[in-house]
Amino acid sequence: MMNYPLTTKSILERAKMLYAKKEIVCRDYSGMFRYNYGQFYERTCRLANTLEGLGVKRGERVATLAWNTHRHLELYLAVPTMGCVLHTLNLRLFPDQLIYVINHAEDRVIMVDQDLLPLLEAIKDKLTTVKHFVIMNDTAELPQTALSPAHSYEKLLAEASPAYNFPSDLDEWSPAAMCYTTATTGDPKGVVYTHRAILLHSLSCLSTDMMGLSERDTVMAVVPMFHANAWGMPFTATWTGSKQVFPGSRPDPAILCQLIQDEKVTMTAGVPTIWMGILQVAEKVKYDFSSVKGFICGGSAIPLALMKAYDEKLGVPVIHAYGMTETTPLVTLSRTKSYMDQWPEDQQYTIRVKQGVVAPGLELKIVGENGEDLPHDGKTMGELLIRGPWIAGEYYKNPEKSAECMKDGWLHTNDIATIDEEGYIFICDRTKDLIKSGGEWISSVDMENTIMAHPAVAEAAVIAMPHEKWDERPMACVVLKPDYAGKTTEEDIKSFLDGKMAKWMLPDKVLFIEEIPKTSVGKFNKKELRKLYL
Amino acid sequence: MMNYPLTTKSILERAKMLYAKKEIVCRDYSGMFRYNYGQFYERTCRLANTLEGLGVKRGERVATLAWNTHRHLELYLAVPTMGCVLHTLNLRLFPDQLIYVINHAEDRVIMVDQDLLPLLEAIKDKLTTVKHFVIMNDTAELPQTALSPAHSYEKLLAEASPAYNFPSDLDEWSPAAMCYTTATTGDPKGVVYTHRAILLHSLSCLSTDMMGLSERDTVMAVVPMFHANAWGMPFTATWTGSKQVFPGSRPDPAILCQLIQDEKVTMTAGVPTIWMGILQVAEKVKYDFSSVKGFICGGSAIPLALMKAYDEKLGVPVIHAYGMTETTPLVTLSRTKSYMDQWPEDQQYTIRVKQGVVAPGLELKIVGENGEDLPHDGKTMGELLIRGPWIAGEYYKNPEKSAECMKDGWLHTNDIATIDEEGYIFICDRTKDLIKSGGEWISSVDMENTIMAHPAVAEAAVIAMPHEKWDERPMACVVLKPDYAGKTTEEDIKSFLDGKMAKWMLPDKVLFIEEIPKTSVGKFNKKELRKLYL
Repeated sequence: MMNYPLTTKSILERAKMLYAKKEIVCRDYSGMFRYNYGQFYERTCRLANTLEGLGVKRGERVATLAWNTHRHLELYLAVPTMGCVLHTLNLRLFPDQLIYVINHAEDRVIMVDQDLLPLLEAIKDKLTTVKHFVIMNDTAELPQTALSPAHSYEKLLAEASPAYNFPSDLDEWSPAAMCYTTATTGDPKGVVYTHRAILLHSLSCLSTDMMGLSERDTVMAVVPMFHANAWGMPFTATWTGSKQVFPGSRPDPAILCQLIQDEKVTMTAGVPTIWMGILQVAEKVKYDFSSVKGFICGGSAIPLALMKAYDEKLGVPVIHAYGMTETTPLVTLSRTKSYMDQWPEDQQYTIRVKQGVVAPGLELKIVGENGEDLPHDGKTMGELLIRGPWIAGEYYKNPEKSAECMKDGWLHTNDIATIDEEGYIFICDRTKDLIKSGGEWISSVDMENTIMAHPAVAEAAVIAMPHEKWDERPMACVVLKPDYAGKTTEEDIKSFLDGKMAKWMLPDKVLFIEEIPKTSVGKFNKKELRKLYL
Repeated sequence: MMNYPLTTKSILERAKMLYAKKEIVCRDYSGMFRYNYGQFYERTCRLANTLEGLGVKRGERVATLAWNTHRHLELYLAVPTMGCVLHTLNLRLFPDQLIYVINHAEDRVIMVDQDLLPLLEAIKDKLTTVKHFVIMNDTAELPQTALSPAHSYEKLLAEASPAYNFPSDLDEWSPAAMCYTTATTGDPKGVVYTHRAILLHSLSCLSTDMMGLSERDTVMAVVPMFHANAWGMPFTATWTGSKQVFPGSRPDPAILCQLIQDEKVTMTAGVPTIWMGILQVAEKVKYDFSSVKGFICGGSAIPLALMKAYDEKLGVPVIHAYGMTETTPLVTLSRTKSYMDQWPEDQQYTIRVKQGVVAPGLELKIVGENGEDLPHDGKTMGELLIRGPWIAGEYYKNPEKSAECMKDGWLHTNDIATIDEEGYIFICDRTKDLIKSGGEWISSVDMENTIMAHPAVAEAAVIAMPHEKWDERPMACVVLKPDYAGKTTEEDIKSFLDGKMAKWMLPDKVLFIEEIPKTSVGKFNKKELRKLYL
């Protein structure tokens, strides 16, 4: 068989050949922007010429500090395909972290959305490798900025040649993109995605029982494009010619609902907090979601109550998935098997709230504290280990962290999981969030989701309190819905849990708080919770 | 990213982990045989132990001479995954060809279906490398045979250990399977499929817009398993846990119809002659085909009339596809794009009868006689060139044929095709079947399909007659339906074509014959036609 490399050129050129007429839509600063894949391809050529003109060499990093836009999509495809490395910067990082990742990755150029300029202006004097800033907005006019040298994206593209021959001699093991994890302790860790990893991940995602995108889909990535390749959607949707919708700068739930309705979105993806926000809006204002086939939910566990609310109130199935920055990111996705259609509805939900089954091409297992393989009985908890062609084998220039997390050919996820007889994994906790009470383990995630099924509860996070006798005991931090504030008691919550969990697991304390702090990607920030309330 | 090899172990182990309860069904010699993927996995372990016991070493060839059965599926997965090479023998080869391919591949063991024993017995003394014959039937009893040493498949498996550790150290570039082309001239040419090629081909096939198999599908491969990996279905269906149905020995159209109805088949695949046969049966006897999502048709072009008859009479969409032994085999598949739903029905058919769009991961183009790239206008004919990770880079131990067909990194298919503005390819002809009339090209396939739309015509094949002035002119060989024999004239056919093709293209002669000779895989044998009628 031919030694033909797996590179993003396959994705870009196929889209040009087959889908020139298909639409790409973006909520731009001044209104809805629309063009087609044919025009998109031409702009990726202009962009490649532009970057060459700025002196970017093969293998060098081109960073983005940007929302989900069509320009970001152009960067997603043009930068790797010309042989450079796309580095997506998380716009919610603290300034020190942003400085660290830009300098650590040695970014040459940063492409920045106009309304994110202040983030860069505040740190510009600390950036040691950046040669150019390119500002992205609707016009060819350069806004006022303290960055230098600064260029207008639209002006550079307008002036560049529309013809470019993307190279055919890239090695599939060469880097295509990189992303840093959102560390809550220590410096962020960099993950480098090879062309090979992105191509294999995309093919696996395209399979019908995984994300299963089609030309007939209209895809809107709500998950930020700076977050683990936006779960691969920019690559998979382009490869198969789906209509793509980008929500642009600072999207709120109402904007997202409007876009789903107006553009007839069929598939989208995001973290649970997004779906909570959308549900709240869609319960008040009636939107037409009849085009939707599914919302993919990942990043952290979805509460059962939220999944049920989507089915019952909006008629939209939420599809649970799991992955991490280190895994390109899709590892599992949860669809029920055909014979489960015969099961009672409640039993089907016990499957659907799990994170799902392993994607074709990957391998996973759970192991005990001495590394021993644990049984697939749906009860035994162990650390989840993953390996496969799109799983990180190391952190970028970080041998210490690499040695900690990548051992014996497996990625050690620090996630505690069960695997059931049907092969579905369920993430019980992060290793550090697990509550170790008297030698037994209590899953904080499980308890949170049970509490969030209480009608008065908006959000709940469970953390471990130190305990003299039992080492640790659970404490529940609960946010009540506005109508219930002050009317629901600690006893109400405890008696709601009674019967749903073993008695010894029940929380020692229920604390009502105003808000649960979130990380930069919308997950519960338990480190912050512990700091505030312990 | 991890250096994790793409091997068939991924397919087999995932099926075991996730789909142990799913069913595999086979029409065995004594009735319907049923088991599940869990039992299937155990038997692949027994089979691997059996083959080791017979002294088969890593990298050696294990041949099959077999129908589409569950035992053949066991061989499909066990042989490559243990590190050996599955060589599927075409049971319709001439004895001399069979001897050639067995000796050329240096097969160590041949696994043969009981009712195909005579094929091997007739040539046994000419086989220079075979050490064992293993006979497959329903029982552990060895039938009478002149082969030696001969073993019973079921007896060996019953005696073997059910535990086997499939190796993790296989290289993805190592050979997994091989298949010889059905040469109409010269010796058959061998194609070696690497693990990498099979895995990538399978992933691409699993994508929704290609075959798109799902756990929810029930798949029946009608295309023989000795024919180019049965178009990949044994691998893809196993990977995604589809229910699999095997039609067993000597299936006829009535048997296939019954299986589709009884087992609620959703997807199947075969050559046009199969679908013609099934249509004839299903027009007379009413079968319930309501489970069927689509019949995939490849191997040679499907006549438009046949596709329409399936839509109108059976309500079953026929999905056109294209590939060859050298391409693992899927290259293109034809589904209309979403915006074509708005087109008039006839225009949609002009797309559906084409062979379709390139699979994610491959690259193709058409070139002129001097190798120049030709436009995608749907009119210009050129030779189809293909490249990609599951395209053969050479023939097995055949440098001469390799040099002829694999040039400048492209597979030269010898197929003449057009590519339209939408990216759909249409195969006009084999290079050698094209009719070159006065410097212009006439597609024999196009004319055949037009003739086959005539209500009186069962089959038609068009070949080139030598012509003094124009070099070549078309001659149509037509088989009439029984009711029309003797009642339809040459003039009827010619006037039917008039207006549907340019005047200068019309055939100089229409010859009514009893039957069109077929090749071993059911294609029109034009070499034989020329021999008989020119």
